[in-house]
Amino acid sequence: MTIIKEFQDVVGEKAVLTDPADMKGYLVEWRDKYEGTALAILLPQTTEEVAEIVKICAKHKTPIVPQGGNTSLVGGGIPFDGGDEVIISLKRMNKIREVDVAGSTLTVDAGCILADLQKAAEDEDHMFPLRIGSEGTCQIGGNISTNAGGVQVLHYGNTRDQILGLEVVLPNGDIWNGLTSLRKDNTGYDLKQLFIGGEGTLGIVTGAVVKMYPRPKYQQIAMVAVTDVPAAIKLLGLARGMSGDQVTALELIPRIAIDLVVKNVPDFPDPMPARYGWQVLIELSSSATKDLKGLMEQILEKGFEDGIILDAIVPESLTQQNKLWQLREEISAAQKPEGGSIKHDISVPIAKIPEFIEKADKAVAAIAPGFRPVTFGHLGDGNLHYNPLQPEGMDKDAYLGMWSEISRAVHDIANELRGSISAEHGIGRLKKNDLPLYKSAVELDIMRKIKAVFDPDGIMNPGKVLPDQ
Amino acid sequence: MTIIKEFQDVVGEKAVLTDPADMKGYLVEWRDKYEGTALAILLPQTTEEVAEIVKICAKHKTPIVPQGGNTSLVGGGIPFDGGDEVIISLKRMNKIREVDVAGSTLTVDAGCILADLQKAAEDEDHMFPLRIGSEGTCQIGGNISTNAGGVQVLHYGNTRDQILGLEVVLPNGDIWNGLTSLRKDNTGYDLKQLFIGGEGTLGIVTGAVVKMYPRPKYQQIAMVAVTDVPAAIKLLGLARGMSGDQVTALELIPRIAIDLVVKNVPDFPDPMPARYGWQVLIELSSSATKDLKGLMEQILEKGFEDGIILDAIVPESLTQQNKLWQLREEISAAQKPEGGSIKHDISVPIAKIPEFIEKADKAVAAIAPGFRPVTFGHLGDGNLHYNPLQPEGMDKDAYLGMWSEISRAVHDIANELRGSISAEHGIGRLKKNDLPLYKSAVELDIMRKIKAVFDPDGIMNPGKVLPDQ
Repeated sequence: MTIIKEFQDVVGEKAVLTDPADMKGYLVEWRDKYEGTALAILLPQTTEEVAEIVKICAKHKTPIVPQGGNTSLVGGGIPFDGGDEVIISLKRMNKIREVDVAGSTLTVDAGCILADLQKAAEDEDHMFPLRIGSEGTCQIGGNISTNAGGVQVLHYGNTRDQILGLEVVLPNGDIWNGLTSLRKDNTGYDLKQLFIGGEGTLGIVTGAVVKMYPRPKYQQIAMVAVTDVPAAIKLLGLARGMSGDQVTALELIPRIAIDLVVKNVPDFPDPMPARYGWQVLIELSSSATKDLKGLMEQILEKGFEDGIILDAIVPESLTQQNKLWQLREEISAAQKPEGGSIKHDISVPIAKIPEFIEKADKAVAAIAPGFRPVTFGHLGDGNLHYNPLQPEGMDKDAYLGMWSEISRAVHDIANELRGSISAEHGIGRLKKNDLPLYKSAVELDIMRKIKAVFDPDGIMNPGKVLPDQ
Repeated sequence: MTIIKEFQDVVGEKAVLTDPADMKGYLVEWRDKYEGTALAILLPQTTEEVAEIVKICAKHKTPIVPQGGNTSLVGGGIPFDGGDEVIISLKRMNKIREVDVAGSTLTVDAGCILADLQKAAEDEDHMFPLRIGSEGTCQIGGNISTNAGGVQVLHYGNTRDQILGLEVVLPNGDIWNGLTSLRKDNTGYDLKQLFIGGEGTLGIVTGAVVKMYPRPKYQQIAMVAVTDVPAAIKLLGLARGMSGDQVTALELIPRIAIDLVVKNVPDFPDPMPARYGWQVLIELSSSATKDLKGLMEQILEKGFEDGIILDAIVPESLTQQNKLWQLREEISAAQKPEGGSIKHDISVPIAKIPEFIEKADKAVAAIAPGFRPVTFGHLGDGNLHYNPLQPEGMDKDAYLGMWSEISRAVHDIANELRGSISAEHGIGRLKKNDLPLYKSAVELDIMRKIKAVFDPDGIMNPGKVLPDQ
């Protein structure tokens, strides 16, 4: 019996894709950076089916790539081993298993789309705080496996902070049932933490218990022009203190990002009354403070007094507020028509952000004079998307040919400031061989040994996270 | 050269205690439940010294018991191997290494007393939210190793949620420097999570970066008599929703607990205007809502309307508020003069609390008719201290002789409701052999293999957490 037949016996013929046309969508990364090949795409519908097909793979030592919504930015869900691998996609495991309002939890299949979780929480007048650009496509299992971040980390934390329990199929096909909804449980090593951010290299997350929060009744955003980046950091401290920790997002936006959105997104007029170097998009959320607009204005007044604010818009209507959020969200796409963009997802201690920007700009200018710095993102978390854009008129491929030189320089600076080379996107295939530059031998050794505990034959998402040896 | 001499060469003669009188305080648990013996007590002053003495121990295969403030409730910091072990106490490593106000972090030695961290945060108009009875004695290293809980978990989470980075001396003497202060870092397995709650079995935490929060400017508590336990849960939902998630504590207090405090604590008049079965101590904290008393009264009004509240006190003065908190904190001590008390630290999903109490009371009554249920604690986290007190007039030792029978019954019920047998105190020595009753073979197997990754010779806090085989 072929392995394909064995898979079919477990999940049915229709749930084993082998036709290249059917497989195509699972094998290409959405940014077209990676394309892989696979033996088959498997679409199980239950945790038990996942366990059975993993057992078959374990028996044949067939490598497995677990795949969520296929929105990775680092090649985490694509097979690279020349066609020997199978992809296990959990897209058909998309049920909300249980809603517990008293306990403020959702129990969900790992294949649930993030937006469906948000919706399920809203239906109970609660909220699930993970908010990222790909929320209409990405799956909670992928969010968990990559410890996804997003725009509300400042207040609610990363995906890790939203997880109470996990169900995982281990590389030998055993099911680990850690689906607890407890807020407190100190009975041994907290195993779920290894799967969160483990990028599918230790097992396949099949279910989760996540936290819900009371839904904030009021929200107010403002777009604030600040004197410089240190002023943006001061504004963060001011706003957190004056609002009683009700700042739910604080995003840094440079002038060039607004220019690119205005230029490249249809019908997008410049919202700012004048041209300033640095803007901050700040969001307050509350159920207790009805007059959030008044509170925002008090914060901004103090900012003007302190000399850190140059100008500000505090929109009245929800439509206007959403338009400003849209500006933030369009920044990624608005860079595309401008040629080559070299992406970085770094974090540094918040106080070091100005130093990081200064040093990185200098280092990149030395390599690519005339480059355009598009530096934006989650300032409140110390996490910047540092995306140097090619000089105007330069050949795109020539610029992208400098990727590794530029990245190395940028990552070295982040590392020198005790930062991270991957704040929220993970390691995947893209950055695995950078790890030895920035992690100690002690740490890499432990990582390898932990990998061997779960997956001694190395069949689970091979070639990801751990550096080649 | 003897091993004692080797230790002395590293830390100096005075930092190696071998005299029984000097060692005594380190060998006895504060509740007098456990007393151990040791080869020596070692008092290193730096991480490097810890690493050196661990290397000596590794060479000789001498077992090590890491000890913080020695406030464990489960025998986690006491040596039990008949005098072959050394205790490494970090009490002399008690420096705040760095205060980063912009990043809202503290970097600290693991031997820092918890109250000193709280103070360091307050000095910068911030707060460190971990608040437990032993805060004047316990050390942050111990809090981390046991993932300590306390009264503000409801809003701020457990110790785990406060930790950004760790420095750990591994069982082979290597130093793992994971002292990052990043809010976001997705570069491989999150190793620090294994040491948090690892109870010193995987290595010795020597330093940490912890989060600070803006200090709430206003606080208001109320003592509320509720109709029954389900009403207390409804009040939690009501208060979280109406306050915009500003409930920072919600503690359940039964009538008998007030009676015991009034009887056994000098000068403690009954604060309640009448005798009710169940009380809830609720705390709101905010910097945004000035009139927290008004907000509390609105919440209580709604509770009266909904028929879940019978009576309430909303004290004006800070002194009166503190007096109510003191009542909560005296409950443990107030049980002591009443004879034998069998302690449990269970958690269940919040909605299951009424069912747990009903079933556990029935099960204990079947074993010890006439027992007095003292059931109190962190209702908002689903975590109860379920401490059945002996029947009046019964022989104390006869009652305590029922410990394992009663505990087994109580733990079985918690487990049946998908709860935990140790919500915040950990496993230590006390509960290690209960684990196989409540954890799957799959999970225990992974725990053992992870232990072997870090500590193949089993020298680090032996006989703790992992069940005997």
